[in-house]
Amino acid sequence: MRIARPSDIHDHVTQDQAGLGRTIDWRDDGIVIIDQTLLPAEEVLVRLREVGDLVEAIRRLAVRGAMALGVAGAMGVALAAARATEDGADLEASVLRAAEALRAARPTAVNLAWGVDRALAVRGGGTPAIIAEALRVRDEDIAAARAIGERGADVLAGCGRVLTHCNAGALAGVEGGSALSAVRVLHERGILREVFVPETRPLLQGARLTAWELGRQGIAHRVIVDGAAAGLILGGRVDAVVVGADRIARNGDVANKVGTLPHALAASFAGIPFVVAAPESTIDLTVASGADIPIEERDPAEILRRDGRRVAAPGSDALNLAFDVTPAALVTAIVTERRVIRPADGESLEPAGPA
Amino acid sequence: MRIARPSDIHDHVTQDQAGLGRTIDWRDDGIVIIDQTLLPAEEVLVRLREVGDLVEAIRRLAVRGAMALGVAGAMGVALAAARATEDGADLEASVLRAAEALRAARPTAVNLAWGVDRALAVRGGGTPAIIAEALRVRDEDIAAARAIGERGADVLAGCGRVLTHCNAGALAGVEGGSALSAVRVLHERGILREVFVPETRPLLQGARLTAWELGRQGIAHRVIVDGAAAGLILGGRVDAVVVGADRIARNGDVANKVGTLPHALAASFAGIPFVVAAPESTIDLTVASGADIPIEERDPAEILRRDGRRVAAPGSDALNLAFDVTPAALVTAIVTERRVIRPADGESLEPAGPA
Repeated sequence: MRIARPSDIHDHVTQDQAGLGRTIDWRDDGIVIIDQTLLPAEEVLVRLREVGDLVEAIRRLAVRGAMALGVAGAMGVALAAARATEDGADLEASVLRAAEALRAARPTAVNLAWGVDRALAVRGGGTPAIIAEALRVRDEDIAAARAIGERGADVLAGCGRVLTHCNAGALAGVEGGSALSAVRVLHERGILREVFVPETRPLLQGARLTAWELGRQGIAHRVIVDGAAAGLILGGRVDAVVVGADRIARNGDVANKVGTLPHALAASFAGIPFVVAAPESTIDLTVASGADIPIEERDPAEILRRDGRRVAAPGSDALNLAFDVTPAALVTAIVTERRVIRPADGESLEPAGPA
Repeated sequence: MRIARPSDIHDHVTQDQAGLGRTIDWRDDGIVIIDQTLLPAEEVLVRLREVGDLVEAIRRLAVRGAMALGVAGAMGVALAAARATEDGADLEASVLRAAEALRAARPTAVNLAWGVDRALAVRGGGTPAIIAEALRVRDEDIAAARAIGERGADVLAGCGRVLTHCNAGALAGVEGGSALSAVRVLHERGILREVFVPETRPLLQGARLTAWELGRQGIAHRVIVDGAAAGLILGGRVDAVVVGADRIARNGDVANKVGTLPHALAASFAGIPFVVAAPESTIDLTVASGADIPIEERDPAEILRRDGRRVAAPGSDALNLAFDVTPAALVTAIVTERRVIRPADGESLEPAGPA
């Protein structure tokens, strides 16, 4: 892995300091992330020491994915605490200010706010307690990815041809991820034949990140344009769809990367499973249905331009919604690290046991 | 309109010679097309005098769209006839060879073969008869676009927020087009509020061509990524979907640009009309259902690279299907220059009157 120094505000990080392929980790009272905007062309680790740098990294999707954002939220509060301690600043004010900025960075992803809240909740114990909690969030994420993978593969038993969307893989968590964790277990069990990878416009997380992960793991896959998925599904060429989630409402409606919903509609029409793999922290019981989930609207330039050059007709505007909501009726199963919920069968999302 | 000379095989064409904004036309025993691969950055007219040049232009989508391809098929045979006459070559052999090459250029688009057959059928009358028939196909296309527009707007009565796909506009025919002809009439009637324009990966005919046409006509529109359409439709932000078609089977199944089917699934789920606007020549009664329509597979590089540079993960392959098939059950109405057929209600596509 190549180590670079993308800007003056980021310290140089050596490979040994950086950890073993974790998308996000905590080292020497700072955060180290893989800059996902540069993949697959370059593998660059970035060290973040200020909350503002982390917020910017989250906004530009250098760190992204529901699970990784949960860890980023907790570590962001830890970052603020560590800096406040170093500078002799007020801990309470510092962490509350950081929490505010972090929560606002991506409004749809509930895990981000969840991670922030986890770290905030222990601030009575001071900076060491906050950092310890952030590390616990990280370790739980790694364990959750493994559990989701095993349970997801059980739910997908017999499905050799799988279609996913965007990147709900190792790069979307600390390690392993959610949907791609299940895909990897299917591969290890010798069931998997091929993964269809929608490129995921506008930022191509499928073609860039998911294809890169699957290639590294030796898993057979082909990239498609997002609009081709429905034709493959109705044509009988896909056995199941498995995706991650950015927020799941109490009624089972699922907000995920824009372009997920059409795959769910196609799966329902064709009678194949549509499976959502996500940690419990993605479930937001405070939100009654998908209609109440705020949908992030991003810069139209992500659609209208590429490599800085305009491709769309001059003068035309774009509407760049980052997520869509799949109604619970289309969701065959939600697989978490603790349970399987079947919203299409009317099963409730109320928690099964103590959190 | 800027006039250019893209290659040595193409004659220089002046604006006066080129006609008044027709996508494809016949001038001085040759074909003149707008090179759609260069839009919207450049408006370049290309003169084609050899069948091989036309086949290449069709393959690389310099001329594209169901209606325009029908005219191109007829004019391609006329081109072969004109050259055979000039060179004293055998007319029969020349036009049959040309017909073969033209039909194979794009296997899914039935209009191309239909146009070829129209011109071939009159070859007993020699080159003048063939050219006259090609001009008749052109003039019928222009008239059909107008009729489809009026009838389509009647079917879409009251729909102010319309979503289309790819480009079924003036650029997809000689003038006016199919789906966008209906959109323009809705605009003229003061009903239209906004058109959502899916960019249409991989070659972005929506963002490049449809947005360009709508902008020229002063019609309010916004470009979206293809995967965002379903979310807008289920979110109640679209009143109707209207698209063109590349081939319609006897049972009402519709082959159109890849990414059409997910819009149809969303429209059906949301209970809004999904309308197909296409000339009668798009209906292929020899094909029983969509399963029998050959689906063109194009170069994976269209997905994996952009501007010659690889964007997908190294080593990953792509599956590049150019079309998908929407089942008749999802098609609210097919609007042609002669009638409205409602496949979802079980109406037959057998011709209503003499062709």
